[in-house]
Amino acid sequence: MTPPNTPENPSDDEASENVRADLSTPAVGRLSLYYRELHRLLDAGQMSTNSRDLAAMVNVSAAVVRRDLSSIGSVGRRGVGYDVASLAQHIGVVLGSGVHWKAVMIGVGYLGNALLRYRGFERLGFSLAAAFDTDPSKINRVVGETRILAMDQLEPVLRDLKPELAILTVPSEQATDVASRIVALGIQGILNFAPTTLRVPSSVAVINVDLASELQQLAFRIQNS
Amino acid sequence: MTPPNTPENPSDDEASENVRADLSTPAVGRLSLYYRELHRLLDAGQMSTNSRDLAAMVNVSAAVVRRDLSSIGSVGRRGVGYDVASLAQHIGVVLGSGVHWKAVMIGVGYLGNALLRYRGFERLGFSLAAAFDTDPSKINRVVGETRILAMDQLEPVLRDLKPELAILTVPSEQATDVASRIVALGIQGILNFAPTTLRVPSSVAVINVDLASELQQLAFRIQNS
Repeated sequence: MTPPNTPENPSDDEASENVRADLSTPAVGRLSLYYRELHRLLDAGQMSTNSRDLAAMVNVSAAVVRRDLSSIGSVGRRGVGYDVASLAQHIGVVLGSGVHWKAVMIGVGYLGNALLRYRGFERLGFSLAAAFDTDPSKINRVVGETRILAMDQLEPVLRDLKPELAILTVPSEQATDVASRIVALGIQGILNFAPTTLRVPSSVAVINVDLASELQQLAFRIQNS
Repeated sequence: MTPPNTPENPSDDEASENVRADLSTPAVGRLSLYYRELHRLLDAGQMSTNSRDLAAMVNVSAAVVRRDLSSIGSVGRRGVGYDVASLAQHIGVVLGSGVHWKAVMIGVGYLGNALLRYRGFERLGFSLAAAFDTDPSKINRVVGETRILAMDQLEPVLRDLKPELAILTVPSEQATDVASRIVALGIQGILNFAPTTLRVPSSVAVINVDLASELQQLAFRIQNS
């Protein structure tokens, strides 16, 4: 999709258009972390920072920070570093954080419940517009700020809300069917917590978070260190 | 740490010793997914598979599957493919899944609660031996199969249990202090859900799961597709 213009900062937006295609997935992940840490500095009232300090905050080398930031057109000034507010704003534009993203959640088990209460999404411009579950005892409850609706309301509600994103927290057995339903309703990206691989058209972006696999990778690293 | 020997399959273990150092982080992640899908096939009674089918299950190309599997010394037979059981066992040895890993959880909020109830960890050989929280109303409750203990029991209990891994699900403000305490107690790896960068010695492995950052990366992909 084409993001809405950000009229406050047309030059930033133009600059970011040129660099976006070049950013690797790990680079986008790091930009997201710089963004998080810059906002922490802003909250603490800090006005400037440098690549060495940012590097320490994100556990990478200062050279990687400088390369990442120069790849989006931000170059620190020698002896001065980066202005925290403008760097945060610039990375935000590149990452699309000025865009207001609408997400829905499918499946409100324990994990879904925890994610609905997590306030970190809102800060980045995501709103959880609705959640869906099959359990009648959950219907109409409000968790965090999101109302849980019945699964058979999925089609009419998504046609009305037109969310771009879905967070999938259903059991593995249901994930494939649910993914087909939401893709047919125009969902463009899925954050998938079900430990299964979704079959979706290549036009739909999927990021998988498999918690057991993360723990397995951690164990692998320890075993081989 | 050195993993215990797996006397059932010494040749597998020898082979894996040689390849482990060469495996990239993404390759380890993919092996973990092949392992998950092979176990799904085993559960369904399927005896053999091939690189094309495995590729479809994990959303990568068949060439990537063949390269990953040959890098750990598994080569499929033309026209026959791979034996599901022995391939699963071999990947398991490489990933250390024969090893029984002991983990503890620090912080039992909504996310911690969801993770304690998640049965996917056990299947991969992880046991959640204890959980810790500061909230007196939670102490001594059993969630999933894990008892919640008071934070001031952390030192004696960890000295007794000697867990290798910790799952950190405390608020960001507490993450740094808690990480120092558990590292001092011999924790070798941390799965960190707090949206902050931990400062730990380089000998300690850390995998960060920042849920808001994952959603931000998903939005980035949609915006630039």
